[in-house]
Amino acid sequence: MYTIKVVKIGGKVAENKETLDRFLADFHLMKGSKILVHGGGVLATQLSEKMGIKTQMVEGRRVTDSDTLDVVTMVYGGLINKKLVSKLQALGQDAIGLTGADLNIIHANKRNPFPIDFGWVGDIEYVQSSWLKVFLEQGVVPVIAPLTHDGKGNLLNTNADNIAGFLAAELARKYTVELVFCFDRPGVMQREKVIPTLDVANYEDLKAQGIISDGMIPKLDLGFRALNHAVDRVIVKQVQDLNNEGTGTALIL
Amino acid sequence: MYTIKVVKIGGKVAENKETLDRFLADFHLMKGSKILVHGGGVLATQLSEKMGIKTQMVEGRRVTDSDTLDVVTMVYGGLINKKLVSKLQALGQDAIGLTGADLNIIHANKRNPFPIDFGWVGDIEYVQSSWLKVFLEQGVVPVIAPLTHDGKGNLLNTNADNIAGFLAAELARKYTVELVFCFDRPGVMQREKVIPTLDVANYEDLKAQGIISDGMIPKLDLGFRALNHAVDRVIVKQVQDLNNEGTGTALIL
Repeated sequence: MYTIKVVKIGGKVAENKETLDRFLADFHLMKGSKILVHGGGVLATQLSEKMGIKTQMVEGRRVTDSDTLDVVTMVYGGLINKKLVSKLQALGQDAIGLTGADLNIIHANKRNPFPIDFGWVGDIEYVQSSWLKVFLEQGVVPVIAPLTHDGKGNLLNTNADNIAGFLAAELARKYTVELVFCFDRPGVMQREKVIPTLDVANYEDLKAQGIISDGMIPKLDLGFRALNHAVDRVIVKQVQDLNNEGTGTALIL
Repeated sequence: MYTIKVVKIGGKVAENKETLDRFLADFHLMKGSKILVHGGGVLATQLSEKMGIKTQMVEGRRVTDSDTLDVVTMVYGGLINKKLVSKLQALGQDAIGLTGADLNIIHANKRNPFPIDFGWVGDIEYVQSSWLKVFLEQGVVPVIAPLTHDGKGNLLNTNADNIAGFLAAELARKYTVELVFCFDRPGVMQREKVIPTLDVANYEDLKAQGIISDGMIPKLDLGFRALNHAVDRVIVKQVQDLNNEGTGTALIL
């Protein structure tokens, strides 16, 4: 049994050439089997603006009408995903870009429109990991875009943290899995200091005090969910620290 | 040994929902192993317009500057490719969307900028078919976007007819291969009648008389090249006739 690392990066990493190239060099140096999950919200918003499509966010989530679904399909499934794949190939790392529709890897349901109609947004129903295992065993890095499908011919915009968390949980049924959420801060912060380890009791306290708030909450909820689904290690860290052991915040049960 | 059908559709098919759905239903009914190669020029031009990017064509080919490369990466690799995959999944046909960068399936060189600088356009160097065979053997349809890569981290805009022709030729080294170019006319035409079979001598005559001209010439050149590379059957036909035997123009040596 070997370890699979599932690394999630946000759209901000993909947006900047220098940050992206440095991240990919670090990612390439990382030993063992690995899967890359990426976001892309920043670039999707930029493309929407250029096309005159209004971006509507509710509770930090993108409302995805038909035009916006086209935008995210283009930006996530095309622009960012294929750029990552071609850059990994240039580093000598074989890779394959995938959405949840490809090989039916991630099946989702369109989110219930009540109380808020988010449009073409998916909630993951299941992950099929058999092809991912084939790729990993052959040394190929799967690069996953934050898109799923409903099996009825519709693509669905799906949060990248969710995809990383569910993927890690599914793989943890058979493998040792480490889940790394990369973002733009050195970890979960308390009074400008990184919290090195965070358990559920601490987490609840810090939420109650308002020290952990907003976008961090769904990310950490997913992290704890993953731990509860046998994922062995969950780390939240700065993208630049990918290979620096002992950095970031480790979640523990 | 079994037959692999390589079917190429143009961007016009993908543009119209009814045409696309009918084509996919026909494609799904087609027996045996199959690969779908798609274009997308019409939608790329539309997106360029919406984004205020000028489309420049020389000799029927798109000049691909950096902005246009982003456009075609989004439209070909994202929008059209993933739509085709999700629609095939809805028909119960497992599928995977690929560019030439994915699994390093199609390696190309950036075209020499003299005498005409086409920008980020690729001329195919080689096709690696080993993963395609794995997918086909598992009943998965590869759906190929007209994008390749140079192995140096750059995606390249690459003509879909070329991709279909080179792919068919590579697979013909091991398998019986049929190459079908679908387009919007019932075949190669002479005085409003379909030419049922066309050999090289006929082809040269009809070119000299101006009966075969423009965009048809590179398509037929590729078709004859494929026959010369052991592809068993090359047909040019209307997309609606996909499963109608005896329609279209069959190329023969």
